[in-house]
Amino acid sequence: AAQRLATLDPGGTVFAEFTALANANKAINLGQGFPSLPLPAPIQAAVAKIPAMPALAHQYARSEGHPALTSALSTFFEPRLHRALDAQTEIGISVGACEAIFSVIFAFIDPGDEVLLIQPYYDAYPAAVRLSGGVPRFARLQAPVGQDASTAADWTLSMDQLERLVTPKTKMLVLNNPNNPVGKVYTRAELELIAAFVTKHDLLVLADEVYETLVYADAPSPMIKFASLPGMFDRTLTVGSLGKTFSVTGWKIGWVLGAPAMVKAWWLVHQFTSFCVAAPLQIAAADAFRAVEGTDHFETNARRFQALRDQLVAVLRDVGLRPCVPHGSYFIMSEASRIPVMTREESPLITRDGRETRVDYLRARWLSHHAQVTPIPPSPFYEHPNPESDAFVRFAFCKEPTDLEEAGKRLRACL
Amino acid sequence: AAQRLATLDPGGTVFAEFTALANANKAINLGQGFPSLPLPAPIQAAVAKIPAMPALAHQYARSEGHPALTSALSTFFEPRLHRALDAQTEIGISVGACEAIFSVIFAFIDPGDEVLLIQPYYDAYPAAVRLSGGVPRFARLQAPVGQDASTAADWTLSMDQLERLVTPKTKMLVLNNPNNPVGKVYTRAELELIAAFVTKHDLLVLADEVYETLVYADAPSPMIKFASLPGMFDRTLTVGSLGKTFSVTGWKIGWVLGAPAMVKAWWLVHQFTSFCVAAPLQIAAADAFRAVEGTDHFETNARRFQALRDQLVAVLRDVGLRPCVPHGSYFIMSEASRIPVMTREESPLITRDGRETRVDYLRARWLSHHAQVTPIPPSPFYEHPNPESDAFVRFAFCKEPTDLEEAGKRLRACL
Ligand SMILES: CSCCC(=O)C(=O)O
Ligand SMILES: CSCCC(=O)C(=O)O
Repeated sequence: AAQRLATLDPGGTVFAEFTALANANKAINLGQGFPSLPLPAPIQAAVAKIPAMPALAHQYARSEGHPALTSALSTFFEPRLHRALDAQTEIGISVGACEAIFSVIFAFIDPGDEVLLIQPYYDAYPAAVRLSGGVPRFARLQAPVGQDASTAADWTLSMDQLERLVTPKTKMLVLNNPNNPVGKVYTRAELELIAAFVTKHDLLVLADEVYETLVYADAPSPMIKFASLPGMFDRTLTVGSLGKTFSVTGWKIGWVLGAPAMVKAWWLVHQFTSFCVAAPLQIAAADAFRAVEGTDHFETNARRFQALRDQLVAVLRDVGLRPCVPHGSYFIMSEASRIPVMTREESPLITRDGRETRVDYLRARWLSHHAQVTPIPPSPFYEHPNPESDAFVRFAFCKEPTDLEEAGKRLRACL
Repeated sequence: AAQRLATLDPGGTVFAEFTALANANKAINLGQGFPSLPLPAPIQAAVAKIPAMPALAHQYARSEGHPALTSALSTFFEPRLHRALDAQTEIGISVGACEAIFSVIFAFIDPGDEVLLIQPYYDAYPAAVRLSGGVPRFARLQAPVGQDASTAADWTLSMDQLERLVTPKTKMLVLNNPNNPVGKVYTRAELELIAAFVTKHDLLVLADEVYETLVYADAPSPMIKFASLPGMFDRTLTVGSLGKTFSVTGWKIGWVLGAPAMVKAWWLVHQFTSFCVAAPLQIAAADAFRAVEGTDHFETNARRFQALRDQLVAVLRDVGLRPCVPHGSYFIMSEASRIPVMTREESPLITRDGRETRVDYLRARWLSHHAQVTPIPPSPFYEHPNPESDAFVRFAFCKEPTDLEEAGKRLRACL
């Protein structure tokens, strides 16, 4: 195999690993971020129409994206970006946010180029940087460890720290807003500092905003798209996800928004990483977007997810896991010190390259085996295990209320 | 943008370009290889069941491939490979053959590694090699130019020529059987020479067999999978395509077959180029495979395509384009000397970087504009334009008989 594979965890992503573990343990899977909920009505309606699509709807779509979907997205984003996007040149459809992240980084990062990542991060960023021969440089949100009632807003970004990481080789900053796994929603003031920083150092920005429609009423700020800030459109590639926007993570549809030359660079890679995206699902996705135009679908949807968040926050508080209340996304970081660690005797599964010594893994595994509730250990969201990754586990709340209730019972019985 | 993009054609693939041209000219699109035909019955039946799938069928599938599909493929390939494939470790599901080709090459080719390609080739191979920092080395099928009744079997591979290209850096051979664009089906004798060659030089083989179910009765050999030859399974990654197998190129489902360690290397890349493949379509694909088990579906299907081939061959003969009869695939290479070249005055579209001087482009464009029948110029299937790429254009026959008939009328009127 090629040497670049040595930069990857040989065990694969933590999401695949813990979903497999949840299945093996017949546990409630509060790990990987996918909704276990009925499909939204506009998606159900669009799916119902798939069998009537003409045969040509099942052949290659336009490589840059199906015109029905890029045009629906142009309408969707106009108020959010305060500008009309050209559906032909400023929007590309990707194989989920995953392919967008990989292909954008691969299209812009040369060997030796440095990319600023903010810990805790989605693990696809450093993987894509390293697969491109780039060098990730790690900033870190300051975590509110040991507080009784923390929220995602208590995770703060030090601009001084970012400044210290910049070198002449720094080329890009990856900004994830709302952030996974913390659920932090950046305020305008925070975003303006970041905008000033990337302008000063002439950096590109990969704005991963896959959870943009999942921002809750108590957030310190509504969702502000980074590319909507003055001057930022031309240095930003925005990534989004139909999976997170419409609760269909298995459709593997995402998008890349940006200036034509930047979207074109993504596309040059995209045509060889995938060529195009599943055509009938793109058409169904366009249907769903058109169906909710002018409705309060996304507001209602966010309220539903907020209720699930509140339910799981209450459960976690009740069992003493001190949840840090997220303001966006599917996830809750929760303090883990009350969770026992799995011993090697207990589980023949703990065999992975050094991970058996990570306390967050041992706690997440303990919970999966003993409580049959499976979270995600957060150390893969950091360069190295550290006191903050040790302190938390991540729970997803995008699940049936009855499952969250049952998870509560199991946690109470064990902790 | 990253320097690796400079290795790509800035205009994108010839397929996207000529499909756009066909649409602009309202021409019959005999360019890009996708069927314009009714969906096969087992696919129609599987599509009809999509609306009744549970909500979880629309969430992330297993990253390596949905178990229903990998298990159906294991059954499908057992007689073809003369071995039982382990559905968990020897089969991976990719975003079409495209992603499989990219991720396999990216997983195995280090900067400076050399990869042997056989011209004319599918253009994704050199792109993936160069994007990986590898160096393509080009062999060439000897073309039967100027023969009145040639077939794909007249395109021959010189093993001496391959031998001369090998250096200590040679790592992989890409073998496309049946070949696109020629439609050559390799005989056992030819494959055995290739097997001896890759064994002697200890090369990996990427066997792109996307057209394996489209082999016609007059082929010099039935389809023989390269990995079924003695000793070849352990050095071969086989790539296939649901799109070509079941006439749904827009589903973007492909597969990678091979020894567990090799499939795993593909997967380490796959999890970041896409993570997983559209889940409801994987389930539908598994349905279709199961529905045709024990039937003669693929034999009947190949006979249907052979009839379309024969229809288009007759049309092309009639207008003096001297088709080279393919024994597999969707495509016919046809001699182009009777087609006039487009002049710059005639078309403001001829503006692409140097391509305006390529005679195959100018003929393909002429045909698209004047006959409203759009072929593909074959020079992108060669390292450089040359007398052989000048001599042909490629037509796809995977189209409605009425469209092929109408194409014949238009060609007769013009030529
Ligand atoms: C592609 S699997 C990751 C899903 C996700 O976004 C998460 O769980 O963080
Ligand atoms: C991914 S577009 C290419 C389709 C095809 O296989 C061809 O036309 O050769």
